[in-house]
Order: sequence, then structure tokens, then C-alpha cells
Amino acid sequence: MHLSIDEATQLAVRVLVRHGFTAAHARIVADHLVEAALCGHEFSSLPRLLAIVNELRAKSVPAPIRITREDGCFAHVDGGDHVAYVVSLVAVDKAIEICARTGIAVVTANNTWFSGRCAYYVERAARRGYVAMHTTNTTARVAPYGGTEGLMGTNPFAIAFPSLDDPLVIDIGTSAITWGDVVLMQAKGEPLPEGVAVDKHGSLTRDPAAALEGAFLPWGGQRGSALSIAVQLLGVLAGSAPVIDQTGNFGLFFVLIDPERVAPGGGFKTEVSAMREAIRANRPLANVGQVRVPGDGSQQRRERARAADAIPLDDKIYARILELAG
Amino acid sequence: MHLSIDEATQLAVRVLVRHGFTAAHARIVADHLVEAALCGHEFSSLPRLLAIVNELRAKSVPAPIRITREDGCFAHVDGGDHVAYVVSLVAVDKAIEICARTGIAVVTANNTWFSGRCAYYVERAARRGYVAMHTTNTTARVAPYGGTEGLMGTNPFAIAFPSLDDPLVIDIGTSAITWGDVVLMQAKGEPLPEGVAVDKHGSLTRDPAAALEGAFLPWGGQRGSALSIAVQLLGVLAGSAPVIDQTGNFGLFFVLIDPERVAPGGGFKTEVSAMREAIRANRPLANVGQVRVPGDGSQQRRERARAADAIPLDDKIYARILELAG
Repeated sequence: MHLSIDEATQLAVRVLVRHGFTAAHARIVADHLVEAALCGHEFSSLPRLLAIVNELRAKSVPAPIRITREDGCFAHVDGGDHVAYVVSLVAVDKAIEICARTGIAVVTANNTWFSGRCAYYVERAARRGYVAMHTTNTTARVAPYGGTEGLMGTNPFAIAFPSLDDPLVIDIGTSAITWGDVVLMQAKGEPLPEGVAVDKHGSLTRDPAAALEGAFLPWGGQRGSALSIAVQLLGVLAGSAPVIDQTGNFGLFFVLIDPERVAPGGGFKTEVSAMREAIRANRPLANVGQVRVPGDGSQQRRERARAADAIPLDDKIYARILELAG
Repeated sequence: MHLSIDEATQLAVRVLVRHGFTAAHARIVADHLVEAALCGHEFSSLPRLLAIVNELRAKSVPAPIRITREDGCFAHVDGGDHVAYVVSLVAVDKAIEICARTGIAVVTANNTWFSGRCAYYVERAARRGYVAMHTTNTTARVAPYGGTEGLMGTNPFAIAFPSLDDPLVIDIGTSAITWGDVVLMQAKGEPLPEGVAVDKHGSLTRDPAAALEGAFLPWGGQRGSALSIAVQLLGVLAGSAPVIDQTGNFGLFFVLIDPERVAPGGGFKTEVSAMREAIRANRPLANVGQVRVPGDGSQQRRERARAADAIPLDDKIYARILELAG
């Protein structure tokens, strides 16, 4: 089935307000989930409401989100145990404010959980003209390379660069598979791909339920595992638990840089656009059509879906969301 | 054959001074190359002298290295076409100075070439207690994922975290193979591994000479390619050429953060050490001994090689270096 953008947004807001969110916070999360749907990221979109509500049931009422420290080009946000969809937005907007003043911003946040697509936040900052890097650590589910026990989170690394048109947005997970995809495959009754997870005994498995009891493997072997460890420790620097054994206390890390301050002259956006063109013009391998620019697929899907005003949603998942909306 | 640390250092200094380096700059490069040898990174060590001297022959006398802009927690270094072994050291030491004052430093550098092991510079900053991230772009030799023409450099990404003992140092290349390794395999007459390079017609090749005329493939498929593009653009932000078609005008990028300023309380080093222990203690896969911590192998080899005071060097390469030393 399909919903219009407005229907999807209102549905998400209704579910979240019914489960304790303020209207403003509900709208922030709804906009994020709808954007994910437009970009074609199925699990990161409305199905995520099921997981959010599930977590809310186990949590007490959150404290206010507070900027607890500010010092030069640095600020720290205490998320008050609010969902990171909201806390990340507060953090990146704080970083944008600092960056406008100083040209550089480092913002950290903790005491929060679930963060959505990191691309969303770095693209927001890049639309203001800033280079934006963002990482978040998450619940321990990923084994270090060579290991079998969850230690790091699925730990995305994102960075966006302003260009003459849409920002060039890079958002890579460091896990061979995301938690969201495993949960979605479990819900759909599908097996996992080969080689992405181990069961609780440390043996490779394609069963989503066994993988959730065991651990996911890191993407990219030793190097991908190293990048995941880096994201984990940047989260610790942000005040997360070193190993996150529940859905809570993630560590968010942001660096923003104003190219106009560090490389005056106004050429940076032009150069990013030139790089995008150079990637597209690169002679493809025999079996490849056109070489793809990171993030372009999401942006193109978003444009098409916006024009069509249509958000796809699995019928079963829609039924479950409707129940939550009451 | 083997050289003592002192013999290797003196040999490198002699070669570089004979080719126009000041004694101080020669010593900086020599220390870096000897450290690489101690860490067991063959090509990054003394053999690199051959490539450096080769480049120097095509270059004119460099200009002085200058800090051309400084603004809050930011500085930019113009490398004056000096080798990046020296410029990176100037840049990271500038970043350390700024970070000591403000808690955050972003330093960029351009107009430089060849940067050695990025681990060297981030470890230096981490020994002062700082989290240090560093990237550099390099000569266009790596095709974007799906492509066949060199666009990005081999583009390393490095980050180090201070701990209670040695820093935890991550240094990953984003190319399936390094330029150094290809040159070394060519010198030794060995074929490349499968699937790391294409020839100038865009067909996979295992011939080092054909790969040097063609392009290397990115590590880690689409995600690794995206990371390489990010490093490329951070270099452009630092003032490099967007696509570097010769050995020159690389862009170096550094971010340093003082954990004591952003996360007061003194616990960060303890948590990094705890993470190192947790990685080592992770139950290994059936065919794995102990799970390895990134950078630990280099540090352990360095410790052993220092104790033995012995640096291995290929006989043929030694003979060629001796010729350069005159």
C-alpha cells in the first residue's frame, strides 16, 4: 500500500503523541521517518515506529534536553533519555549555530537512543554550506573482526559536503547488516544473507532470531572493524557507555566546518560539484552502467517520491502501526 | 640484511641532505622511515627514499613552510612544496599547540606531497592526550566503485585515542592496494593479488606495471569508495587540487580534541584501555587465535625491533640507497 506524505506524517505524529511525545518532538521524528521513506530506506522509515514505541514502554518520562557545556567551538548536549531523532537535531542545530560564529564546531551528545539516518543531520548542515561529519555508537551487537560477541554498535559514519546543487552525502554503516534490516527480515520471515552474523555459540547463522541473540559481523573485515571501533570511541568521548548493553546512552559526535572560513575564496562548492561530475564521468567497468555518486540514489528516489507524493508501506506493518495510533 | 636504528637513521639523513634537505628536515623524515621499519611496514620505511629522491629530481627548490592563516581553533599550513613527512609534522604540532589552548583544533595543509604513515602523526598527538583524526589525499590512482579510471588517491584515514598505555591507533587505507606495495612488487618482480587493479583499458590485471598505467580499485566496495571520496574532499577543503594528477599539492586534514575539555573527569583514557581489553577478550571465531586490536601489531613489532635494534632491509634496495648516499 501507499500513503501520501501528509498521511504518513500525521500517522507518525499520532502514534508518537499517543505514547508521550510533545507535538513538536513527534513532528521532528515524523519528518525524519517520512524523509527516510522518500529516500527508499524501508526500515528506517515508518516501521521504526514499532521499535520506538516498544522502547518507550520500558522507559520512564525523559528529562529536558539540555546544553550542559559550551566552550569556544564546542558544546555538549545531555539528551535526557529522549530519542536521538530529536537529540541529534538539537545537537546539529547547536553545531550550525556555533559554526556560523566560529567556522568550526564540535558537538557531542549522550543520554539518548536510536538515531535514524545520520545522512539526515549532515545533509541539514551541508545545506547551510558546512562540511559536516557525524558518528553515533549504538547498542552492542557487532563483534570486532575475528570475534563473535557483540561489542560495538552498528556504528554509522556520515559526512556531507555542500555543492552547487544537492550536498554530496556519504553515510556508511560499519556493520555487515543493520539491526533494522535483521528485525525487518525477522518480521517478514526472510533469511539473512550469508556471512553477516553469528549465533550465541559463535557459529555463522542466517536465522534473524539467532543473529539477534548472537552478534553481527563487522563490514569490511579488519579495516571496517577498525572504523567501527573508532565510531565506538568517538561515542565514548561524547559520554556514552563504552559498551552499550541496552537501548540507551548512545554517544553522538558532530564536527562542522565552514569552507568559507577555512578555505576562503568560494571555490569549494564548485569543486565538490566537479568531483560529482568526475565520478559520474568515470569510465565504468564492463558490467556497470554509470558510476554512482554516494547519496545520489537516495536523493533521486526522494525527488521522484516527493513528486508522486507516495510512500510505500508493507500492509502488515501498516496494520500494526494503526493499532499503535489507537 | 639488517641495519641498527642508528645506522638506518644516519643513512637516510645522508641521502636526504645530499639531495637538498636541511639536516633538521632530513632527520624528521629519517625518524619517520625508521619508525615505519620498526613497525614492520616495509615499503613505508627506507625503500621510500628511492621514491622521494626520484620526485626531488623533478622539483625545484621548495619555499619555506608557512602558517598562512590562524583563526580561533583553526590554522592552515602552506607546505611550500616540501615533502609531507615534514609538513604533516609541522601541521600536527600546530594542531597540538592550538588544542592545548582551546581543546579543539582543525588544521589543514596543502602544497605538499608524500605523507608517510598517517598513524605516525595521530599517535604523536594521542601521546599528548588528544583524540586525533587525520586524512590525506594523494595522487589520483584509485577508481570510484564501479569505475576504471584513477580519480581519488589511496587516501588513508587515521584516528588515534589516548589510553592508559600506548594510544589505540587506527590507520586504514581506502585503496585495495597501496601505491607503495605496487611499486615494491614491481621492484621484486611479484604479481599483484587478484582484484585490486585494472589496466589502462579497464580490464582487471595482476601486472604491477599495467596497474600503474591503469588504476587501483577501492577497498571495501561501495562503502570503502565513499570513504575514499570523503578523504578526497577533505583534502580539497585543505586546498589540494580536486584530482591530483602528479606528485604534488596533496591536502592534509587534522582534527584534534582534548578529552579533558570535552568530557571532563579524566575517565576517557581508562575507557579506551577498557575497550582494548574488551576487544582482546572477545571470544574468537573457531579459526582465530586472539582478536586483534587495531595498531597493536605495529606497536608490538616496534617494541621487539627496538629491543633487537635491528631494521630489516632488502639487499637490492640497500644497494640502491647506498648509491644515492654517494
